[in-house]
Amino acid sequence: MNTEVINVGNELLTGYTLNRNVQIISKALARLGININFNTAVSDIEEDIILVSEIALKRADLIIYTGGLGPTRDDFTKEVVSKVLNRELILDETLLKNIEDFFKSRNLEMTKNNDKQAYIPKGAIALENDNGTAPGIFINYGKKIIILLPGPPREVEPLLFNKALPLITNLTDNKIVSKTINTIGIGESKLETIIDSIITHYNSVDIATYARSGQVDVRITIDMDDEEKAENLLSEICEEIRKKVEDYIYSYDNETIEQVVFKLLKGNKLKVGFCESCTGGLVTSQLTKLAGASEVIDRSIVTYSNDSKMEEVFVKKETLDEHGPVSKQTALEMAKGLLTRKNIDIAVSITGFAGPEVPGDDSPVGLVYIALATKDTTLVKKNMFSGSRGYIQERSSKEAFNLIRKHILTDL
Amino acid sequence: MNTEVINVGNELLTGYTLNRNVQIISKALARLGININFNTAVSDIEEDIILVSEIALKRADLIIYTGGLGPTRDDFTKEVVSKVLNRELILDETLLKNIEDFFKSRNLEMTKNNDKQAYIPKGAIALENDNGTAPGIFINYGKKIIILLPGPPREVEPLLFNKALPLITNLTDNKIVSKTINTIGIGESKLETIIDSIITHYNSVDIATYARSGQVDVRITIDMDDEEKAENLLSEICEEIRKKVEDYIYSYDNETIEQVVFKLLKGNKLKVGFCESCTGGLVTSQLTKLAGASEVIDRSIVTYSNDSKMEEVFVKKETLDEHGPVSKQTALEMAKGLLTRKNIDIAVSITGFAGPEVPGDDSPVGLVYIALATKDTTLVKKNMFSGSRGYIQERSSKEAFNLIRKHILTDL
Repeated sequence: MNTEVINVGNELLTGYTLNRNVQIISKALARLGININFNTAVSDIEEDIILVSEIALKRADLIIYTGGLGPTRDDFTKEVVSKVLNRELILDETLLKNIEDFFKSRNLEMTKNNDKQAYIPKGAIALENDNGTAPGIFINYGKKIIILLPGPPREVEPLLFNKALPLITNLTDNKIVSKTINTIGIGESKLETIIDSIITHYNSVDIATYARSGQVDVRITIDMDDEEKAENLLSEICEEIRKKVEDYIYSYDNETIEQVVFKLLKGNKLKVGFCESCTGGLVTSQLTKLAGASEVIDRSIVTYSNDSKMEEVFVKKETLDEHGPVSKQTALEMAKGLLTRKNIDIAVSITGFAGPEVPGDDSPVGLVYIALATKDTTLVKKNMFSGSRGYIQERSSKEAFNLIRKHILTDL
Repeated sequence: MNTEVINVGNELLTGYTLNRNVQIISKALARLGININFNTAVSDIEEDIILVSEIALKRADLIIYTGGLGPTRDDFTKEVVSKVLNRELILDETLLKNIEDFFKSRNLEMTKNNDKQAYIPKGAIALENDNGTAPGIFINYGKKIIILLPGPPREVEPLLFNKALPLITNLTDNKIVSKTINTIGIGESKLETIIDSIITHYNSVDIATYARSGQVDVRITIDMDDEEKAENLLSEICEEIRKKVEDYIYSYDNETIEQVVFKLLKGNKLKVGFCESCTGGLVTSQLTKLAGASEVIDRSIVTYSNDSKMEEVFVKKETLDEHGPVSKQTALEMAKGLLTRKNIDIAVSITGFAGPEVPGDDSPVGLVYIALATKDTTLVKKNMFSGSRGYIQERSSKEAFNLIRKHILTDL
């Protein structure tokens, strides 16, 4: 089946906003074996939306819109689609009540323009939006399916996954199977060179490497009728790649390194604590983004200055004077100092030069020490990263988590 | 003039790559007063590229392609466009030499498939690519202009700015001027209601609101021949909006709230410190992402548990027992406790329920207290946010920074 995603919104064409929704939608559809064939972004101009809608109706069987469902006057995707499909808009009382409740529960005044979000095309199904006021809309139009979703990615994702997809599962026989191998600690071109013979050997399969913040992924995608055959081939290829780069693989299918570490800590009833210098809270915040983080972390300290390193985690003045704040010795003392606090089984410290400028000539941007201390063991890893300040912080964070992962797995 | 950007590449439709090129191109074109009207992404499938090319030729005067110019077998944008325009591909000897030199200078072997990058449609102008082997291509096609650019954003940007734009500067006299007003603390629909009369009054001007993580922006865009007139009108409208929503405006033109606070702290020689519970390090990390952060922050503590709140920042056990960890009282004691540390002029604490689950029935997800303490003053703000865990953390962070901003400005 042909699929088109239409994103409505000036902000997508003026450079104001990156179009993240296509990515969200394509990942969701891939699970059902549906590929996106066309993606069109268009401004909030009625005749342009009509034009792209008419083209989409000719070339696609499934059309997913995002944007233009909100309460404001430049939100009129629903109105335009109703016009193109020749379906009257009718008031949905349940929706109206939901919107009223949304405002009531938050003690907010419901401005008049919010009413319009309670209207849906005749015969359409409203998809309740748990994260905003604009509901999604599902329309059967002959043999075609048309789905309208709001613009904010945080609303698109749950609406699509939980509400829209269950309604479109029986549309295709083709199965796309894919697997992603997640690695940390190896560059993209090196990784590609190592697995080059595998890519060549399976030349009918899409095997591609992708570098993203601080890590490299290998994605294998197989598109065939016979799902079992596809799954077997997929396993075979994954196994061959695993043999070649096992040391760098931390997980599969885009589980983040934080999630992997979270599960390891939880499963082993361990608590971690961080003493962060150059990452400035990033490592802790990546862990506490996960629901239930309190089971695996009790506290962390950001010691950005020398004073704070001495006062909070008892780094010796002599150590700082002799070796500097970015050194093996300081990293180790930070971790050991933190370990004296309660409720920390694994104390991890990060100290480095994130740049863009450094205090002295002999302080290379990108030099980062990561230390780990438990009651039985201490270890420290020297890293040299290159890139922007943000990239160095991100890489440092990934490496800190990877160090914890390796420590727990070795210790088991 | 109507403009369409066509991005060619499977990776854009499978969810693997975010389409960053539209943003780059739109920002570049805006300087020439050119808006993008349509953006289409399409896979590496010949008939699909033909289809979208034919549609674009009907509705656009300027068509910019990205992707599919490389040496590999799935790169054939140039071949397809030549076919659609009925222009033969011819070998450009200069290009061939450039490509050979590129490989020679890098001591790389030039594989045979690189030859094909030296072919361009008859009558076209090659745009030399200083950052890769695939040249851009500029085609005059009747009154239309067609530009082909490679896929990698780091190649697109310089090719477009330095090579393609100088060739298209005389296409339009129009100038686009725009300004963005950044607000925190007000919802999108309420904001629009407040400025509705302004939007109605200036109905020829594009005034639109955009909600993004934890804040709402108003963007005013004016497209007219007379640049001075446009600038004056822009100032006038901004001023009218400012009068109506002054309390919520923290900056203009997408300066982040962290940047604003960073400058205020630095300008007033003040240091901030955070005691974070539900935000788990996020607030500190957003500040330490900025270069030079050590001038405005010395340390922070993440007190995720009750134990750590008592031990690190001296919250009283009775306070926790009586009011709970998410309360005005606890927030205040956290901030005051942190203030006892050295090198902190402004201590800020954040404690709340980020969800998705909460410890008790009477603990509403989204309830967040933010307190601020200095040697002269203390204040605490109660917030009720709704959304995902990540969203609540993000909102809390923005509000914490906004509280600091308001405090410093009031205190001056």
